[in-house]
Amino acid sequence: MTPFTSKDYIQRMERAVAQAAEAGLTGLLVTPGPDLTYFTGYQPTAITERITMLVLDADHDPHLIVPVLERPDAEGAPVAITDWADGSDPYAAAVRLLDPSGRYAISDSAWAMHLLGLQQALPGSSYTSMTGSLPMLRAVKDADEVDRLAAAGAAADAAYEQIISVRFEGRTEREIGTDLARLLTEHGHSQVDFTVVGSGPNGANPHHEMGDRVIQRGDMVVLDFGGLKDSYGSDTTRTVHVGPPTTEEQEIFDVVRRAQQAAFEAVRPGIPCQEVDRMARRVIDEAGYGEYFIHRTGHGIGLTTHEPPYLVEGEEQPLVPGMCFSIEPGIYLPGRLGVRIEDIVTVTGTGGRRLNNTSHDLQVVA
Amino acid sequence: MTPFTSKDYIQRMERAVAQAAEAGLTGLLVTPGPDLTYFTGYQPTAITERITMLVLDADHDPHLIVPVLERPDAEGAPVAITDWADGSDPYAAAVRLLDPSGRYAISDSAWAMHLLGLQQALPGSSYTSMTGSLPMLRAVKDADEVDRLAAAGAAADAAYEQIISVRFEGRTEREIGTDLARLLTEHGHSQVDFTVVGSGPNGANPHHEMGDRVIQRGDMVVLDFGGLKDSYGSDTTRTVHVGPPTTEEQEIFDVVRRAQQAAFEAVRPGIPCQEVDRMARRVIDEAGYGEYFIHRTGHGIGLTTHEPPYLVEGEEQPLVPGMCFSIEPGIYLPGRLGVRIEDIVTVTGTGGRRLNNTSHDLQVVA
Repeated sequence: MTPFTSKDYIQRMERAVAQAAEAGLTGLLVTPGPDLTYFTGYQPTAITERITMLVLDADHDPHLIVPVLERPDAEGAPVAITDWADGSDPYAAAVRLLDPSGRYAISDSAWAMHLLGLQQALPGSSYTSMTGSLPMLRAVKDADEVDRLAAAGAAADAAYEQIISVRFEGRTEREIGTDLARLLTEHGHSQVDFTVVGSGPNGANPHHEMGDRVIQRGDMVVLDFGGLKDSYGSDTTRTVHVGPPTTEEQEIFDVVRRAQQAAFEAVRPGIPCQEVDRMARRVIDEAGYGEYFIHRTGHGIGLTTHEPPYLVEGEEQPLVPGMCFSIEPGIYLPGRLGVRIEDIVTVTGTGGRRLNNTSHDLQVVA
Repeated sequence: MTPFTSKDYIQRMERAVAQAAEAGLTGLLVTPGPDLTYFTGYQPTAITERITMLVLDADHDPHLIVPVLERPDAEGAPVAITDWADGSDPYAAAVRLLDPSGRYAISDSAWAMHLLGLQQALPGSSYTSMTGSLPMLRAVKDADEVDRLAAAGAAADAAYEQIISVRFEGRTEREIGTDLARLLTEHGHSQVDFTVVGSGPNGANPHHEMGDRVIQRGDMVVLDFGGLKDSYGSDTTRTVHVGPPTTEEQEIFDVVRRAQQAAFEAVRPGIPCQEVDRMARRVIDEAGYGEYFIHRTGHGIGLTTHEPPYLVEGEEQPLVPGMCFSIEPGIYLPGRLGVRIEDIVTVTGTGGRRLNNTSHDLQVVA
């Protein structure tokens, strides 16, 4: 992958300032995490109580406030830098760059402590979350970003192809999860964010991570795993079965599979996000399992594994080519089992393209 | 270690509600991270855009709001639980538990997006950061917590004792850092948070993580590493030298060593935090290196590696037995070298006790 350049970052910042103006905002306040990485490439070693914040507005060049002891790390970013020292008031340094009556979008995950510091230092200013006011800021990926997401997806697929040949019966969820984490790393992930191994009844908890349950013959096992490769996310789910499934298990699996396919086929530019959710939900509702599909159909992915756009009832944002998100319907029968199938999908000029491409058949494992 | 019990958590919540009332607050809003772990033991797998929040106040039992799909994970916490589903308004669910004109302390690292959601849903309510209003909430550790911090410190010390016998010359900072991370894990850390290996001129950047610089004979090397063991933090720094130091290097090292010792000897109940900072700074100032000590003397440690109390000019909070914090003065000569010595120290009834106990001599490595 070619690294992003200062030119890329500057274009992104300029586009964001224009979007903010269209939304009636004075500017953007960007804190460490995916937003700051997106605009500058700068990723502080740790996100701490010491404020780091990029100020973007139409009247000034981009300006980054950093703790003085982190300044050397920040100097690669294509922005002006002001530092502040321990024992001084960091908000005083920050508000000198802000319009006292300005309205700013601030990164979703900015610390509440910092937002409260700004609100107190500039009582006439006002704030809104990045997702609340500029949800599409990072949602439409350029070709280089889609390539990175595709590479992350291919690496996750390779991990899946290997995990299905290991032994499941008699091993704990944690052992399988550890295998999965190792495989993701071997296939180029720099960070593993989650390795859900939900066997038997644990599969009915969509966010069950992994535990010490010993996997049995006859278990459904939900495998949901992902992380970051070259800074971009992977996230895929397959549900496997230890030994042959029962007729009912196969039927439930097939419902989820059809729901995932129906949602995928709905993807094309202009369709509202909620329509994709509805297509998956309709299939599951009609099969009589509606009450057991207890989460939205999907979420955007990029520099994080959860970001806009969200495929959820009420989200009317139309799909745009370059958007990338998960499609991951599921059925969860409390105390019994869970089934989920998840692919990352990118919107093309005419439809959708899957960035995960392993088989949707119910895989029988040993 | 004996796990903390529901009784421990309930006592902590009761104490917090009393402290909040004394501070003129209606209650506390606790979000995932160290605060939620402290009060309930509950650690969600990931901290995401889906709000999870514990409401503590004097008029109601503790109440946790969680996304419905994370409810099974949360059910071990000794609190009432209300869930909310994707597509519903999570802030509507949250504010039903709040006083419309209440004043709440909210976790420092709560997402700005969530704070803005609460502010919008309850315009008559007001908020302050946990550190701003209740800085001592988790600062005084009980005996079991000090034991955990001591065990984490001993594990970090064991890693240091081993790292000084590896070869430095000719290897990269990254190789040494990888060794350190492995050693921390081998000595029981579940998470490695940082492994600073600042060799030669890189040592002058206090937060330099590690890079591809090949370590040379004649280098000073700052080693600053830590993470979590049994949920409690370690954080220690030693500066080593590859081959024998010059007279000037030894002198600078001795200034830092004396500064660390002077600060440590100042520790006793009732002394203001800033006094510990001043004692370290005075030694370095008097030696003529004051402008090269560019950070505070220390920070609290517990369920995180950076938390109150902060040993910094302006912090008048008196030391209390059970507080645990770093004492870590340093001298940073840009383009040349850095020296830092850091121990975790706990306040006893009469003074301080170090939780790191490796030698303060300038260790010569190969």
